[in-house]
Amino acid sequence: MSAPVKAAVIGASGYSGIELLRLILRHPGIELVAVTSRALAGKLLSTEFPRLRGIAPADTLAFIEPDVELVKQSGAQVAFLALPHGVSATFAKPLLDQGLRVIDLSADFRLRSPETYAEFYDHAHPHPELLAEAVYALPEIRAEEIQSARLIACPGCYPTSILLPLIPLLKASLIDLNQPINVSSMSGASGAGRNASVPLLFCEVNGSLRPYSVPRHRHLSEVGQELDLAAGQSVPLTFVPHLVPVHAGICTTTFVKLAQDIAPEQINTTLEQAYADEPFVRLLGQNHCPDTKHVVGTNFIDIGWAHDSRTNQIILMSAEDNIGKGASSQAVQNFNIAFGYPATTGLMQV
Amino acid sequence: MSAPVKAAVIGASGYSGIELLRLILRHPGIELVAVTSRALAGKLLSTEFPRLRGIAPADTLAFIEPDVELVKQSGAQVAFLALPHGVSATFAKPLLDQGLRVIDLSADFRLRSPETYAEFYDHAHPHPELLAEAVYALPEIRAEEIQSARLIACPGCYPTSILLPLIPLLKASLIDLNQPINVSSMSGASGAGRNASVPLLFCEVNGSLRPYSVPRHRHLSEVGQELDLAAGQSVPLTFVPHLVPVHAGICTTTFVKLAQDIAPEQINTTLEQAYADEPFVRLLGQNHCPDTKHVVGTNFIDIGWAHDSRTNQIILMSAEDNIGKGASSQAVQNFNIAFGYPATTGLMQV
Amino acid sequence: MSAPVKAAVIGASGYSGIELLRLILRHPGIELVAVTSRALAGKLLSTEFPRLRGIAPADTLAFIEPDVELVKQSGAQVAFLALPHGVSATFAKPLLDQGLRVIDLSADFRLRSPETYAEFYDHAHPHPELLAEAVYALPEIRAEEIQSARLIACPGCYPTSILLPLIPLLKASLIDLNQPINVSSMSGASGAGRNASVPLLFCEVNGSLRPYSVPRHRHLSEVGQELDLAAGQSVPLTFVPHLVPVHAGICTTTFVKLAQDIAPEQINTTLEQAYADEPFVRLLGQNHCPDTKHVVGTNFIDIGWAHDSRTNQIILMSAEDNIGKGASSQAVQNFNIAFGYPATTGLMQV
Amino acid sequence: MSAPVKAAVIGASGYSGIELLRLILRHPGIELVAVTSRALAGKLLSTEFPRLRGIAPADTLAFIEPDVELVKQSGAQVAFLALPHGVSATFAKPLLDQGLRVIDLSADFRLRSPETYAEFYDHAHPHPELLAEAVYALPEIRAEEIQSARLIACPGCYPTSILLPLIPLLKASLIDLNQPINVSSMSGASGAGRNASVPLLFCEVNGSLRPYSVPRHRHLSEVGQELDLAAGQSVPLTFVPHLVPVHAGICTTTFVKLAQDIAPEQINTTLEQAYADEPFVRLLGQNHCPDTKHVVGTNFIDIGWAHDSRTNQIILMSAEDNIGKGASSQAVQNFNIAFGYPATTGLMQV
Repeated sequence: MSAPVKAAVIGASGYSGIELLRLILRHPGIELVAVTSRALAGKLLSTEFPRLRGIAPADTLAFIEPDVELVKQSGAQVAFLALPHGVSATFAKPLLDQGLRVIDLSADFRLRSPETYAEFYDHAHPHPELLAEAVYALPEIRAEEIQSARLIACPGCYPTSILLPLIPLLKASLIDLNQPINVSSMSGASGAGRNASVPLLFCEVNGSLRPYSVPRHRHLSEVGQELDLAAGQSVPLTFVPHLVPVHAGICTTTFVKLAQDIAPEQINTTLEQAYADEPFVRLLGQNHCPDTKHVVGTNFIDIGWAHDSRTNQIILMSAEDNIGKGASSQAVQNFNIAFGYPATTGLMQV
Repeated sequence: MSAPVKAAVIGASGYSGIELLRLILRHPGIELVAVTSRALAGKLLSTEFPRLRGIAPADTLAFIEPDVELVKQSGAQVAFLALPHGVSATFAKPLLDQGLRVIDLSADFRLRSPETYAEFYDHAHPHPELLAEAVYALPEIRAEEIQSARLIACPGCYPTSILLPLIPLLKASLIDLNQPINVSSMSGASGAGRNASVPLLFCEVNGSLRPYSVPRHRHLSEVGQELDLAAGQSVPLTFVPHLVPVHAGICTTTFVKLAQDIAPEQINTTLEQAYADEPFVRLLGQNHCPDTKHVVGTNFIDIGWAHDSRTNQIILMSAEDNIGKGASSQAVQNFNIAFGYPATTGLMQV
Repeated sequence: MSAPVKAAVIGASGYSGIELLRLILRHPGIELVAVTSRALAGKLLSTEFPRLRGIAPADTLAFIEPDVELVKQSGAQVAFLALPHGVSATFAKPLLDQGLRVIDLSADFRLRSPETYAEFYDHAHPHPELLAEAVYALPEIRAEEIQSARLIACPGCYPTSILLPLIPLLKASLIDLNQPINVSSMSGASGAGRNASVPLLFCEVNGSLRPYSVPRHRHLSEVGQELDLAAGQSVPLTFVPHLVPVHAGICTTTFVKLAQDIAPEQINTTLEQAYADEPFVRLLGQNHCPDTKHVVGTNFIDIGWAHDSRTNQIILMSAEDNIGKGASSQAVQNFNIAFGYPATTGLMQV
Repeated sequence: MSAPVKAAVIGASGYSGIELLRLILRHPGIELVAVTSRALAGKLLSTEFPRLRGIAPADTLAFIEPDVELVKQSGAQVAFLALPHGVSATFAKPLLDQGLRVIDLSADFRLRSPETYAEFYDHAHPHPELLAEAVYALPEIRAEEIQSARLIACPGCYPTSILLPLIPLLKASLIDLNQPINVSSMSGASGAGRNASVPLLFCEVNGSLRPYSVPRHRHLSEVGQELDLAAGQSVPLTFVPHLVPVHAGICTTTFVKLAQDIAPEQINTTLEQAYADEPFVRLLGQNHCPDTKHVVGTNFIDIGWAHDSRTNQIILMSAEDNIGKGASSQAVQNFNIAFGYPATTGLMQV
């Protein structure tokens, strides 16, 4: 095996950040050379994240200031960005200019349209000139572009769980788009971030089930973009996320109308064809329901489906880890593709 | 105040049963005279349910065998049935014959059609002759019939959370029924009962988000019946329940198409008119999301809504306690109506 | 019944505060006339605490600034203080001067010695002149003094769970004090307060079991004071609290050496005698273990015990709600005693 | 690297069993050739444990009947036994006779004395003749014996968390044994097994903190045996376990008296010396508290300590995964030692 790729993680203080560190520290093809965090600069990785104690080099590597020059000096060939939207783009630009490849976990490079970005994220895009180049990096859909991309935009957590079941069905024209696609998702609290906040306290989340961000969650923008691309037309879509008391995990249930003259079994055939060679998509089949507890901590997405003959609707059900397949392990999957490793390298722990 | 009504609870060993006992023991208009359980006969209430220790008469009243004659001898004027479907009807009949009024928490008297019952519950109805008389007792919708009913069928937990937001909108013809109504619900584990079962162990439920009973949960039958009645036509409906790691609470999200030429604000007006005088329906208004943690342990249902202008759909969101408003406290609310007490008697703890 | 007592709650934005409001709003002998919170001034109670919607007067009463003059104008005869230590004393003084009785939930008036206060709370006591007058208000131990007290200091959450099992045994000289008393407690996260803080996020508490504040938690000071008083000598004591993933509840396990020539059965006799007439102390007897789920939301404390014949030690086990019997419902119990109501008034919900 | 060792897992239907499978499937030095379960015979591993789908050979290997002949035919060189006590010994005997090495996770070979076994496990030992040969396999204490052992008895979950902090201190005579050692532990629900049982339902465990098995938990027997060995005298000990609402994790707090003329710092020195070369013991130092969330899913045990100068007691605090370091990953650690692999092989995931 050739020398491991030198990697930096920019902004590693949140739940996606630590998940990324956890995976990278055990990845045989990555050498972690720099980790930045303004708040934690100077601290050892394992001091902030005691779970990592004893896992080299977490006991010797310290967070550094998020300075592009320092990152460059570390010898990093690739940078994973786990930063808030808006901030991420301002780091991506100079890192790309320095010759690093960038794998971004934020929303900054997911949209093709700066207008849509501004509409959903409430500020102008800092580097709209990079949008055309960025790849919306669902590895099961865009492996080829990812291989050669300089700027890899990892999809959001909800979007991954919504898009993977839907895209093959839309491409195969199995869905009647005269009726809106309705999506109800539940997410664990790690999706809301690791910031001090009363509504995210244990006592406010435990025992609580609640929808939020209705009717217009930010992830609608990227889901819409990708569904439209897959369908070749505008896809009507309503999306309701819910916060539920688990650490990690997204469970998504999608209601779609079966197109005329389509037999329900074609759902199965189409999904099987689309994902036959994909190691991280586990198809459960008809009337089998996924369960987040079987995917949390992994890069798997489990997909089941059912046909409601009373309404001729298909119910798509998916489960993934919001900070795994929905964020950090998907980023590592993209790394594997981009740097020529087998897709499963470093990702088969369960 | 006149003498309290003498009441029996039949089958009080489950989560609805203990919730019923908890409420009845503190209700100023009810004297608990008999509690039956085959498995627990001879045991004191507070031995099985240590939470009730010190709350008279839980320390002196023992469970008795589920024998109609014994119940009659206790002097009970009303019997609350917290029994499995199928079993409940076989107790209701002789209790009615003995002159007791019956408040049934099971599914046995919710459906008007014995054929639908047989289709959804997999056995013939034990007493189809009673179905015509039974009232599907949503207290906010059928107070008048409940007042004089001998046989009160309390709605299911999911149905209560689905029907209360929808019925006024259907009655007012605000919903376009050419498109199916899609309902996604989450429920706490108490809804699955208090029976030894591996899938309901702490270690199987904690950290787990999972749909189940797709595509045809039993509650579809009663929801369908009541929606059809409200709309005056057949209402297409798909329903997906999910099990999530909370003890109690149902959170329901419903997607409906707004009828042509209806302004979204009419949703608000219609709900406000329907529930203006109802003490247990709390309307949160547009873009306000309910949270189960504010209703668990109470008889309240909280309802919010949103309009997705991109699809012209209405998102209805409701939260209730599945063993409270969805079962036992709703049964007590029906008792209050049936026996002439103010609706809120014994039900205003929060 | 005479007119209800007019009460104010000072500093009602935390978990003890809302628990206090919940109880007071349903207490037949209390009229809530003022609620203060600097952060929430102007907001309705039910806006901040949606659980209280529909419970008069939570929909009409607004938080006011924590101003003594405003509290006086409200007509309040008694003030419940749910404030941080240090702050509480600065409100207690002028409220007492205005003629109100004060029921303090903070630590400010629990200690007799201003030196001990300064040692454990890291600042000088604001009003040491009030310490002699204050009653350390364990209602089962000091009912007589509470009846006439102007200044009632409610015990801390851990101390209540430690002291109630131990005090009768120390008074009866059943314990060998040549060996330290060792106490291990577990508490739910509400005990840590309702402030934005990363270590209290759902994702940091869920799945986490951890001791904290070793070897010297602040509650050692009041526990030590009261044990010494009961024993008539200095009592050696080590205390280790743990944070565990529940909303509310304290479970305390205490290891003590049985004194020479004492039969284990005397533990039972002594506890039974001490608490025979106490409605909120539930004695479970030998080898019966309490469970916090039976006391959360109530004012009960459940106490069991065992004798380890191998070491001749007694294991005392108690369970209570840290924000109930450990804080707010105990405060209401003290109110009942102080104002001549039966001890159980407003406190028998389970 | 030489060919992987062929291994069988006997009785893999519980939480330790699946944890063992999870580790073995990813261990580079183990080839899983047989998995037995009476209840699951014929089922694929990944059908019963959907988390393992896609991890070869979980999709192709089926459970077989627990038949020694079948296990022999599989070519297994070593058998991991994850069976109930009493049953385990009846499999160990013939497997040893067939020439396999046995790594037992049950209690059957932990005690040297068949009398103590009978006293604590309520039945005679099925094969007392094997007890002398078995090694009580704490890898940090008995690596040398484990290397050559035919019969490796993995310590219990609580004992591991109690013994590792204590043994070096007892060996160094730092503890005053005139006073009992008091141990309070909390365990997640997976420790209670994967059997249908009402007290282990989600609704009974969630929100519940409770001691159990007082005053004489079975693990006292092996802890006592090993402490006595380390101290060279009889060690008085009281132990109270608690069940708390987490899936996995044990947090143990131990109170011991410092021996005369011993400086508290010697605790640190002694622990550091004992575990300097041990990759899975993470010493946190004085006044640093462990947290189970940092060790769950790993083979680490985190140990902190404090000195209470008021009583001259040492507080030892440890955290581990009850089904990891307390069971299955410790079994794999023992495998590594027994078969000449580096101790960390297959065990460094975090």
